[in-house]
This record gives sequence, C-alpha cells and structure tokens, in this order.
Amino acid sequence: MRTFRLVIACPDRVGIVAKVSGFLATYNGWINEASHYSDNQSGWFFMRYEIRADSLPFELDGFTQAFSPIAREFSMDWRVTDSAQPKRVVLMASRESHCLTDLLHRWHSDELDCEIPCVISNHQDLRSMVEWHGIPFFHVPVDPQDKSAAFAEVSRLVEAHAADAVVLARYMQILPPELCQRLAGRVINIHHSFLPSFVGAKPYHQASLRGVKLIGATCHYVTDELDAGPIIEQDVVRISHSNSIEDLVRLGRDVEKMVLARGLRYHLQDRVLVHDNKTVVFA
Amino acid sequence: MRTFRLVIACPDRVGIVAKVSGFLATYNGWINEASHYSDNQSGWFFMRYEIRADSLPFELDGFTQAFSPIAREFSMDWRVTDSAQPKRVVLMASRESHCLTDLLHRWHSDELDCEIPCVISNHQDLRSMVEWHGIPFFHVPVDPQDKSAAFAEVSRLVEAHAADAVVLARYMQILPPELCQRLAGRVINIHHSFLPSFVGAKPYHQASLRGVKLIGATCHYVTDELDAGPIIEQDVVRISHSNSIEDLVRLGRDVEKMVLARGLRYHLQDRVLVHDNKTVVFA
Amino acid sequence: MRTFRLVIACPDRVGIVAKVSGFLATYNGWINEASHYSDNQSGWFFMRYEIRADSLPFELDGFTQAFSPIAREFSMDWRVTDSAQPKRVVLMASRESHCLTDLLHRWHSDELDCEIPCVISNHQDLRSMVEWHGIPFFHVPVDPQDKSAAFAEVSRLVEAHAADAVVLARYMQILPPELCQRLAGRVINIHHSFLPSFVGAKPYHQASLRGVKLIGATCHYVTDELDAGPIIEQDVVRISHSNSIEDLVRLGRDVEKMVLARGLRYHLQDRVLVHDNKTVVFA
Amino acid sequence: MRTFRLVIACPDRVGIVAKVSGFLATYNGWINEASHYSDNQSGWFFMRYEIRADSLPFELDGFTQAFSPIAREFSMDWRVTDSAQPKRVVLMASRESHCLTDLLHRWHSDELDCEIPCVISNHQDLRSMVEWHGIPFFHVPVDPQDKSAAFAEVSRLVEAHAADAVVLARYMQILPPELCQRLAGRVINIHHSFLPSFVGAKPYHQASLRGVKLIGATCHYVTDELDAGPIIEQDVVRISHSNSIEDLVRLGRDVEKMVLARGLRYHLQDRVLVHDNKTVVFA
Repeated sequence: MRTFRLVIACPDRVGIVAKVSGFLATYNGWINEASHYSDNQSGWFFMRYEIRADSLPFELDGFTQAFSPIAREFSMDWRVTDSAQPKRVVLMASRESHCLTDLLHRWHSDELDCEIPCVISNHQDLRSMVEWHGIPFFHVPVDPQDKSAAFAEVSRLVEAHAADAVVLARYMQILPPELCQRLAGRVINIHHSFLPSFVGAKPYHQASLRGVKLIGATCHYVTDELDAGPIIEQDVVRISHSNSIEDLVRLGRDVEKMVLARGLRYHLQDRVLVHDNKTVVFA
Repeated sequence: MRTFRLVIACPDRVGIVAKVSGFLATYNGWINEASHYSDNQSGWFFMRYEIRADSLPFELDGFTQAFSPIAREFSMDWRVTDSAQPKRVVLMASRESHCLTDLLHRWHSDELDCEIPCVISNHQDLRSMVEWHGIPFFHVPVDPQDKSAAFAEVSRLVEAHAADAVVLARYMQILPPELCQRLAGRVINIHHSFLPSFVGAKPYHQASLRGVKLIGATCHYVTDELDAGPIIEQDVVRISHSNSIEDLVRLGRDVEKMVLARGLRYHLQDRVLVHDNKTVVFA
Repeated sequence: MRTFRLVIACPDRVGIVAKVSGFLATYNGWINEASHYSDNQSGWFFMRYEIRADSLPFELDGFTQAFSPIAREFSMDWRVTDSAQPKRVVLMASRESHCLTDLLHRWHSDELDCEIPCVISNHQDLRSMVEWHGIPFFHVPVDPQDKSAAFAEVSRLVEAHAADAVVLARYMQILPPELCQRLAGRVINIHHSFLPSFVGAKPYHQASLRGVKLIGATCHYVTDELDAGPIIEQDVVRISHSNSIEDLVRLGRDVEKMVLARGLRYHLQDRVLVHDNKTVVFA
Repeated sequence: MRTFRLVIACPDRVGIVAKVSGFLATYNGWINEASHYSDNQSGWFFMRYEIRADSLPFELDGFTQAFSPIAREFSMDWRVTDSAQPKRVVLMASRESHCLTDLLHRWHSDELDCEIPCVISNHQDLRSMVEWHGIPFFHVPVDPQDKSAAFAEVSRLVEAHAADAVVLARYMQILPPELCQRLAGRVINIHHSFLPSFVGAKPYHQASLRGVKLIGATCHYVTDELDAGPIIEQDVVRISHSNSIEDLVRLGRDVEKMVLARGLRYHLQDRVLVHDNKTVVFA
C-alpha cells in the first residue's frame, strides 16, 4: 500500500499531535502507523506518521504546501516522503562478500524497498556477483599513496547516480572528511564491533585479545570522527574461549549483515531521526 | 511524575487521533507518551496516552465526564487511570520461591508500582519471607479430594482485599472456571514453557523428552481453557544435550521470573489491551 | 588443518576415555579438540575427538583397522571421518530463495566445508542463481495427483550424485516415508516454527493466530513422522502485536537461514550424534 | 552426587589426556564430566574433569599424592577440589540490593553451592535483609578522606572468615591495589557495562550519552587495573531511544544480577581457568 511518511522533530509543547492529526483529519487522511517520542532530557519532540496516500487529496507537493504553515508555527524540522518513490542507494564494498550479497539478495527478493543504481568497489572480486543482479559495477581502485583521485571518482559516481544514500557494506576505507560532511546523514556504515568498544582496525583481534564473551556489530551514520557517528542499530553474538579469531570473523559476519540490513531498512522507511549525535528509531 | 493513562480500543476510522489529541489540547493536556496501533486484519484501532496529570484541569471524574461523548461517538472500549492510584495485586504461590521473591524484591525496591495487600499460598514455606516484607500471608491449603472450600476462601480473600489483579507466581493449582471468568483479564499466570509448546504439567520434562534446544516461559492472562489465555510476554534460554532436567528447572527459573516481572509491569502500567484472545502490548 | 574426526557412542563405564586417548597417544596422535558427554539418564556415553591427521601414522583405513578391537570391546557405535573428504550435499528447494542463497553463499565463501553436486527443485525460479554458482540444477516438478514419479526421480538423482546428505532448504514437499527411512540421519530439514509448536503447514499463520511474542525455526533430521525428528538447532526472534503475517514471514526468513546454516555446519563437521530421537551436539 | 574436580593447565603436547585419564582408570575413577581446550595460539592446554568421589579409593590428600608425579612430568598448573567442601564466599555490597538479594536467594534455594560466612557493607541499608537469611552483617563505613582504615578492616574480616572468594555485588568502592594483589583470582566484581565499553563511574550515563542500542554487564576477576581484569561472563539487553537513564539503570539491574550469578556459579564449580588475563570457562 502506498503511503506518505511524515517525519517531524521540533521543540516539545502542548498541542503538536492535535495540530498534526487535526490537519490530517481535515483532509480525510487515514493514519496507518503513528509513532511519537517526547525526549524529556532535550525537550524535543519526534513523530512519524504513515498515511495512506490514496486517502489524501494531494501529492507530495500539495501536502508540503498545505502543511508548511504548521511546520513554521511549531519550528519543525520535517520532511514528507512517498513510499512509491524508493530511495536510490549506492553500495560500496571491498573484497568481502557477505554484507553485499545479503543486501542484494534482500533487494532482489523485494525485501529492501530501494533502487540500487550501482555498486562501487576498490577491488574486482565481487563484479560477477553484482552483475548477475543486473546492477552496474564500478571498480575504483584506491592508491594508498594518494587516495584523493579515488575519492573524487567515488564522489562523482555518487552524484552521477543521484544517490539518496550510500552504504559502506564493509568498504574498509575511511572516507575523507569533506565527503562525510557533504553526505551527512546519508552514509551508513557497518562496523564489526559493538561500539564504542574496539574502534578502528581489526576489532575482532582486539576482542580476542581482551577476552570478551560476546562480539557485536554496529550500524551507524558516518561522520568525520571515525566510528563515532550516530548509532542506528547494534547486535551481538555469544562466543567462548574456544573460538579462534577466524571463528570470531565467521560468527561476526552473520551479525554484521543482519545489523546492516535492519539499519538500512529503518533508514529507507524514514524511521530514523538524528538528534545530538543520537538516533530516534521508530522501529 | 503523576500521569493519567488513557487507553482506548475502537473500530478504526479517520479522525480518531485528531479527536482525542484535540480534546487533550483543548484542556492544555501535555502528552508524555503516545502509542497507536491500527490492526489492518481486524479493523480495530488501539491507543494509549500518558498525560501529565498536573497539566489537566480535572481529576479522573472530570476527565471521564468530559471525554465520554467522544468515547460514545467512536464506540470506544476505553478507560483512564491515575498513576497515583497504584493497582492492588494479590500474589499467590505454592512452595517455589523464585517468582514470589523476585516480585517482592522489585516491589520493595519501588520498581513495581502496586500495592500488595496479601500473599495467598497453599503451603507455609514462604510465610517468613513474605512477612519480612511486611505483607500479610494467608495459608489456604487445598484438599486434593475437594478443592471447592479452598477456592471459596481464595475468592473471599481476593475480594476482601479489593484486588485489582491476581498473580499466580507458580501457584501450581488450576483455578476453577467460575473464578477465571469472574476475574477475566485480571489474573496473570506464569507458565514454565514457551507456549503453545508443552501445555499442562511438567513442561521441563516434556521439553527434555522432545530434545528442544531452547526452553522458555510464558506470562498470560488466565482463561478457563488451560494455558490458552492471551499471551502478554515470553522469553527463552538456550540449553544443550548436557543439561539435565534439574538444569532445565534451574535455568527456567530465571526466565520465569523475568518474564512474569515484565508482564506484570506492563499490566500495572495499563500497557496491555486484550482483543480476540491476543494482546496489544505498548511496551 | 587436516583432521580425523573420531565419533563414538557406547554404554558408559569406567575407562573409555583412558582406552581411546591411550590408543591415540600410542600412535602419537595430537588431539585438537575433545568433547565428552555422559548421559546419566540413558547410561550412554558420547565422545568426539579431532586429531591432527599429520600426527598419525595411518590413513582412515589404517585407523579403522587399528581401532576396531577397542570399538568391539566397548560395544561402540562409531565412525572416523577425514576433514579432507568433504561430504557431498544435495540441496533441495522450492521457490523461496533465502535459505538456498544463504547456503550457497556460505559454500562459495568457503565457510561450509562440503561439495554440492547439484540442486533439485520442483520449480524453475532459482535455476539462474544456482547456475551462477557453477552448480547443476535439476527441475523435478511434483504432480500433486501423483507424486511418486517425482520422488523416484529425486531418489535417483540423490543416488546418482552419491550424496552423503540431503538438505531441504524450504523444499515445501513432504518426502515419502520410504525415502525418509532409506536416508535416515542424512536428510536435514528447516521447519519455520519453534517445534514442537506449529507443526505442519503455515506455521507463521498459526503463530499469528495464537499471539505468541517470539517466533522461531527448527533444524532437524527428517523421519517419517512429520516435523518430529531429532532437533539439531533452534532459534527465535522477538515479534510484537504490530507485526503482520508478512512481517513474521520476513523476520522468520533470517532465523530460518541462520538456524539451517548452523545445523548443517554441525552435521558436516560430524558434531551431531543421534540417540533416542534426540541429538548430542558437540558445538 | 559428590565429585572431585580436577583442573589442569599446562603446555600442550601429545599424551596429556591419555596420561590423566589412564591415571583415573587405574583407580577405577568414573568421569562424570570432561572438558578440554587446546589453545593453538598460546600453545597451552586446559582441562577439567569431574570424577565421582565414591568411585575413587582416596580422599583429596591421597589423590594429590598419587597425581603429583604426573603433574610434575607435564609441568601442570593444577588443583583438585571436593564438591563436598563448598567454597566460603564473603559478599560485599553498598546500598543497592538487587545483586545481593539475588545471590542470597540463590544460596537460600540451594542453587549456589557455597558458604556465606558474612556480608560486608559500607552502609546499613541491607542489614535486615541479610540477617533474615541468618548471615552476619558487618558495617564497615568508608571515610572518603582516608579509606585505609576501612580496607584494613575489610581485609581483616575476609581473613577472619577464611574466605575462599570475595564477591563485589555492586560494592561501588575501588579496592586498594595491595588487596587486589593479595586476593588475585579470588575477587569477583560485577561491572554495569559491556566492557571494555564504559569503564569507571556512571556507565549507564555514558551509554545513554553515546546512544548505544544495547547495554550490558560484565563479571570479571578484580586486578589492580580498574575494570580490566579477566572477564568471566557478559550479557546485554536491548534498549531504545525512548529509555531514560532511569530505565537503563532498571533494565541493567536484571542483566547485572544474572551475569554475576552465572559468573560466580562457574567460579564455585571450578569451571574458570585464568591465563594471560583471559578466562577459559568450561560452562
């Protein structure tokens, strides 16, 4: 069913829900799903409505025009999206296939509602698998001495494909700060540890060295501070002393791909609101 | 913070949220927490609002009077409760202490918002522990030949103590149908299996015999069909071939007490709505 | 590292470990991994050793010949396998791709140590995906009026490909009893419920109807009683009232594929011993 | 059933299992439970056997004398304990009752096999609850200006009660390095975070600030580096944006007490071996 997703963040006060739902009722809008959150600490209010598109008398433009006065009155940071206009997601990967294959399979099975205009990789390994899915594959090797040319090309491809979001599906390269800032809130990474533990390289080695009893993965928005952006989703799996680092890598793969898929799904359905380097996730 | 909890179930249609939140906004009511659920299958709508009591110009009576026309208009099944009037919960147990001790500890630590006017047991074992908490303990032995006298006494005690809810914290006796019906929606049981698996007696033995790899517990409202009432909460714990039945009983105790405590908490905060032998839980 | 896997079940008594490990020490065998289990209830003893192949002076034949007297002395049900001789696994699927794609990806990434001589399906949908992996795909349609021809062909293909194991990766057809018996202990199924709950067809619909708060999946050996064979592995995922049946199907897919992959891995590494319709899993 | 627990760590080589199990077989020892672990990285071998005491011809002394030559031959770090001689555990707490109550309830229900000679606290709040269990309660206030007198008294009490282990059940004071060293491997702490995340004070506040989606608890041996000792057990619970810090504290309590109880149980049953600041846990 086609829906409009109305997503709002604003300073909390009396009457917001009444005003917004009153607006919708005036136009006979049928609310399919409604989520609210009052953050007592920050004094902000967050909400997300899914409204049946066919119950409303207008398209996105009309909605935006009609709703704008309310948005101004309540100083809202807001957006409305149309489920019939799936986001365009560029996937980036390196050599490891598990996250990329998982996302492509979900997309291919109509489980992930998005378009995937292309996959970018610094290696050729995954080309055939990507192309089997009918998706263009761009090989952009990264010169360790000077990465700027590669990232200029990445940036160009992202723009050329009109990407709404970029997913680092174990891309294993750190994006330059300028790119992070330009794409703020639109780049999703999967880090193979339970952040904030084990930031940076080789987290499974770090975990093995520390002797933890669970390992995890973290899906987060990329900011220019490494592995420190707003967390969207996390999960863990139990390990024991008898697991080698190879075992951790293997067990971790399953957590990584599940966590990334869940996080991306939330993002695609406009369920994630970022505030103060944290997320509200209306799951 | 003192809140009113407005809980509503009604046939779904356009304008419910607008009407209810508009009503609240008219009286300057500050919504602290808002939950909604549209059940597309049954065509019913469920909602629960927590409103700051001090933001409203009336008490429960005034609220009820003012809101009744709306309730009628939308054919609502509804209630409003006051967080300052904790529910009165009679606990029933047999010999095993884990669930009862856990609930009493949570109550004693102000984690469970309720009054516990008394504990009823068919055995004396737990008297001293209960009385240490300053709670009256009633011993009502059950004659296996004729249980009617015992249940008459239980029924009398429940009424004499003006119980809003009864919790069977491993009571190990089946309540008579008449009592189940009279207290419908107010008796909460913890069953030591992941229902609908292993209904009835000795579920851990049944689980061991079947060779399952997880065992669980189920918190549900009691109806006159054994272990078949609306499920409020469930959880499981992993076991292996090496666990004896005694291990299952031990591991299961932790699941039972956690699941019961969560289920009861939901009930006490008016987060559970029953419809068609299923629950909506606004957790 | 190449290992021999020695797997033993026998009546329990003093001296088994001493005899077996003494045998290995005599030949300078280096034990890489050792698992034991004494079942006090049945009086049986189970063990599994992984021994470095290069530490032993013989191949499987020599091992078997040397060890046989001990096996006889202790009335052992036993086997020894060579990690360098991966099992041959025939996969069977219907239309749904998630389990099959997951297994093939794990195999393709060298995570599942087996050979996959072919995939058999009653539909054509997954042919291209299978063939991308370089694996032969056989389409064996099942005539609902008379399934015998189809199962004769399945049986022939399984034999022609010298399968050590058959995996029903959401095959959605019930194998005839004769085939179940002939392949006893070698056919692995994934059932999309937490058995013994929701045996048979449409378990997610059954789960939704009952209002459970967790759904699960079960990997088990197939016997001629439907969904009643020895359970190898199970897991669950939390759901809520707000999840539609389509959500359950989607969430369940992830549990199914994870549980099946773990169960199959245990089987491939000879970690599963069946006794009395239950499994010992040396995970 | 009374058992001897033989626990061994030594450099790995061929023939250890044969020698140890051969020794036991010679004396007709019935092995109830056997666990082994070869650490390929460090080259160490770890094992733990539970042997039925009534199957052996000697007591601990005789066992020790007979086994010593083998221990010397293999340079074993080893011990043998008698399940009939429960460890003596001194519990320390501050004001929060959840961990202490939980441990005392498990002890009182015969679930934790130990003696509890006394409880030490820097506050009086938990005296009555402890004394209801028939256990002496010592109030040792800690002067923030000079903590040495308090820790001298703690040290004296631990020795006077011949403690085998000390459990910091949310004691909230940092033990002086000298005490940590003297009681190395015998002091168990519960830290209310998923270490190594959120070391030190107010971990739930740190977790809320970072916006993590799971919180955890860690049971570890105390060393003189804060929250950096060998980890015995960990677990987590899911949280969301809607959980306040008070919610985290409440949800965390359940994880803390479960993790501490499991960790202590492993310790009491001699299931934990420490090596290189990590643990082998034969759960």
